[in-house]
Amino acid sequence: MCNEIKQIELIKKKLISNNKSIIISVNEDNSGDLGYAPYFHDHNYYYIYASELSTHIKLLLKKKLGTFMIINDEFVSQNIWARIRLKFDAKITIIRRNNEDFHNICEKIRSRHGQTMNLIKQFSDFHLIKIIPSRGTFVAGFGNAFKLEGQSLSVISKIKP
Amino acid sequence: MCNEIKQIELIKKKLISNNKSIIISVNEDNSGDLGYAPYFHDHNYYYIYASELSTHIKLLLKKKLGTFMIINDEFVSQNIWARIRLKFDAKITIIRRNNEDFHNICEKIRSRHGQTMNLIKQFSDFHLIKIIPSRGTFVAGFGNAFKLEGQSLSVISKIKP
Repeated sequence: MCNEIKQIELIKKKLISNNKSIIISVNEDNSGDLGYAPYFHDHNYYYIYASELSTHIKLLLKKKLGTFMIINDEFVSQNIWARIRLKFDAKITIIRRNNEDFHNICEKIRSRHGQTMNLIKQFSDFHLIKIIPSRGTFVAGFGNAFKLEGQSLSVISKIKP
Repeated sequence: MCNEIKQIELIKKKLISNNKSIIISVNEDNSGDLGYAPYFHDHNYYYIYASELSTHIKLLLKKKLGTFMIINDEFVSQNIWARIRLKFDAKITIIRRNNEDFHNICEKIRSRHGQTMNLIKQFSDFHLIKIIPSRGTFVAGFGNAFKLEGQSLSVISKIKP
């Protein structure tokens, strides 16, 4: 693996660990919806806990496919035209309340994102959703985009302009 | 107009003026794409200057419709589960380089978003896009969502859970 790819992997890792929430886009026919949710990242998967009362979550649960983006805050972006971001396509599955992983992952989300989880954990319109990436792109700066492949979203190559 | 609606209009106005960039989601059949761009807001319209080499912009130019979101940074959000955000559906038109408004609006974008505009203004793959909202939602906090109508995205009513 060349040095540039190694460096981009490090920047990507930092983006995923420094940020807390993920943008969610789901398509259906010619409509669709957009939202966000706090995430917990573990072993190449992203976990969110979100309510089906939100249109984008309802659609995500139905389609089982979406496009996701983790993007640095404007505040930390030196140039507003070049916010560092990770975008990927993914399928999802629901981790049901009777699954042995449910409480363990909810506890990790609570530990990362605070006490709100204690309140919403009991709400039956909320679901624990596992996001399983397939491919994506990583933008590390202006004109500096990379192709990502597989569940680990490994940096494959620089995208030529 | 009741006091609550007035207050939400103020929070919405502050969100639009404090933030610099807008999340863009475009749908096509069962696929779609997601991205962002710096915006300039004027008289209920949002203007972006973006390259058709980005898949989401290419799709937006083709479909002439998209879903957009302005969302507060994680950094300024007291609770990560309740980031203040404005989401809306909109159609778009292109303001061509020979249109008398082109240079005027580009100058306003440069003034708001800095010198990068001087560089990209000359690139022919970039287009000045006018975003014309139709309807949306505004989330002012946890369980505190409002319905918005019309080009001005006026706050109409609280959305009942």
